[in-house]
Amino acid sequence: MFSDLWIEEKHEVGYGMRYQVEQVLYSKKSEFQTVDIVETKGHGKMLLNDGLVMVSERDEFIYHDMITHVPMLIHPAPKNILVIGGGDGGTAREVLRHNSVEKCTMVEIDKLVCEACIEHIPQTAEVLKGHKKLNLIIGDGVKFVQETKEKFDIIIVDSTDPIGPAAPLFGPEFYGNVKKCLAPNGIVVSQGESPFFNEDIQKSMLEVLSSAFENTYIYNFSNLTYPGGLWSFTFASNSLDPIADFKQSRIDESGLEFNYYNEGIHKAAFKLPTFQRKNLEGLIKNP
Amino acid sequence: MFSDLWIEEKHEVGYGMRYQVEQVLYSKKSEFQTVDIVETKGHGKMLLNDGLVMVSERDEFIYHDMITHVPMLIHPAPKNILVIGGGDGGTAREVLRHNSVEKCTMVEIDKLVCEACIEHIPQTAEVLKGHKKLNLIIGDGVKFVQETKEKFDIIIVDSTDPIGPAAPLFGPEFYGNVKKCLAPNGIVVSQGESPFFNEDIQKSMLEVLSSAFENTYIYNFSNLTYPGGLWSFTFASNSLDPIADFKQSRIDESGLEFNYYNEGIHKAAFKLPTFQRKNLEGLIKNP
Repeated sequence: MFSDLWIEEKHEVGYGMRYQVEQVLYSKKSEFQTVDIVETKGHGKMLLNDGLVMVSERDEFIYHDMITHVPMLIHPAPKNILVIGGGDGGTAREVLRHNSVEKCTMVEIDKLVCEACIEHIPQTAEVLKGHKKLNLIIGDGVKFVQETKEKFDIIIVDSTDPIGPAAPLFGPEFYGNVKKCLAPNGIVVSQGESPFFNEDIQKSMLEVLSSAFENTYIYNFSNLTYPGGLWSFTFASNSLDPIADFKQSRIDESGLEFNYYNEGIHKAAFKLPTFQRKNLEGLIKNP
Repeated sequence: MFSDLWIEEKHEVGYGMRYQVEQVLYSKKSEFQTVDIVETKGHGKMLLNDGLVMVSERDEFIYHDMITHVPMLIHPAPKNILVIGGGDGGTAREVLRHNSVEKCTMVEIDKLVCEACIEHIPQTAEVLKGHKKLNLIIGDGVKFVQETKEKFDIIIVDSTDPIGPAAPLFGPEFYGNVKKCLAPNGIVVSQGESPFFNEDIQKSMLEVLSSAFENTYIYNFSNLTYPGGLWSFTFASNSLDPIADFKQSRIDESGLEFNYYNEGIHKAAFKLPTFQRKNLEGLIKNP
């Protein structure tokens, strides 16, 4: 007897993405969400929070390249980095590839996400087992930015969608505190949802950001496991410009190689389709 | 009694995209393929050939913007245009928006595709009912380029995947004939498959093109209904360069407005992710 096992991520617009599953490796309920890890046929191991695909081994390099290296290679000397969320470890892994980094603090609310990924997705989570520059805190990122006295060069909000535990990460109070703990020349980059399916969320995120920061932008990338493929990150800074303050020499000096990111992609990511540009008119400085 | 009707496009990698169907509007077998049109819940009306999504009302503007306006706004004065395939009419519709065009010849092999779209998807196919500059031929594009004595400024190969009736459109004999019937400064743009799922096809297409043309490129766009979202078109010309020979003034002079395409997108589309650039190294001149 053999029957196919598939998982499906459904969307209210009558659209679903399905992945054939070879084995369920982990499935637990935390106080925040259900955390599953499955081995898929085509996308390697996959982490799902409340049934939504967070990370797959096949395409995680794209998300992590774009959330990390875009701000890291704009900032002239990023030393102290804060990652909110990012429980799979992929963002911390990419941050820690940069020699300029002295400390990376990561604040993940859900211990189970880290635990599951350390056990089953070492590709992203190996770094969470211990790295001399990593300060891993299991706690509430909203409370952390409220209370910390530290200043960060780059803050990366590597969150899930604005439902459940991540909802407060999309509000004005949170970004008020983020601003307070950014160093001069600081940059904050956040998971920015879909240009196709989340026009309202993108607009409200940019309203919040543009009322707190001088320079606000949105940039896009294409992955395989988020609905529609095209996805965004927001970029905010009081002093830095993601195009004018970026140079190819920064990539060369870093000595790093990337499977998705490169100089052309860096600049191209800030060029938006007309419909997205219109939706965010007046709220972004994209060229 | 109510039960959900869904259609699913499956891929060998254990991945499927599913769309909820409200009504099946058309379903016939031609001598080439099965042609279906369904009304979906989230993507409007949708054309499927042999079960593969070709066009949806929701996102067809992206594909048709990018296959048409990129070459049309690089060429200094495109007058005589040939479209191979494109039975839904969307490419001809966009070509005919340009005032410079004197004639658009469209050669679609499958009469049923045109018939089905004229009846059910006027958004793309209205133009096929009759346009004074449109020469609609139901016939074999491979044979057409072999036999025609005409010279075309732009040839757009708006084909399905390299299986079934479209397979010969991916081979060297076809492109030899395309080259023969291109005018000086001619451009040929072709449906170029997925950077994620069709690395081999992209490579073999560029091998064919680069042995026939001086300047070969590939450019990307993001839509909602092709697997993975990110998709490509190839670009070939013996004289024109898609970046150096493109100017914003061409868009302004055209007087046209686009929902996806714009100057930034034109240039950004030619910037490739590292993995795609590596796969096509030596075969493309992308900047």
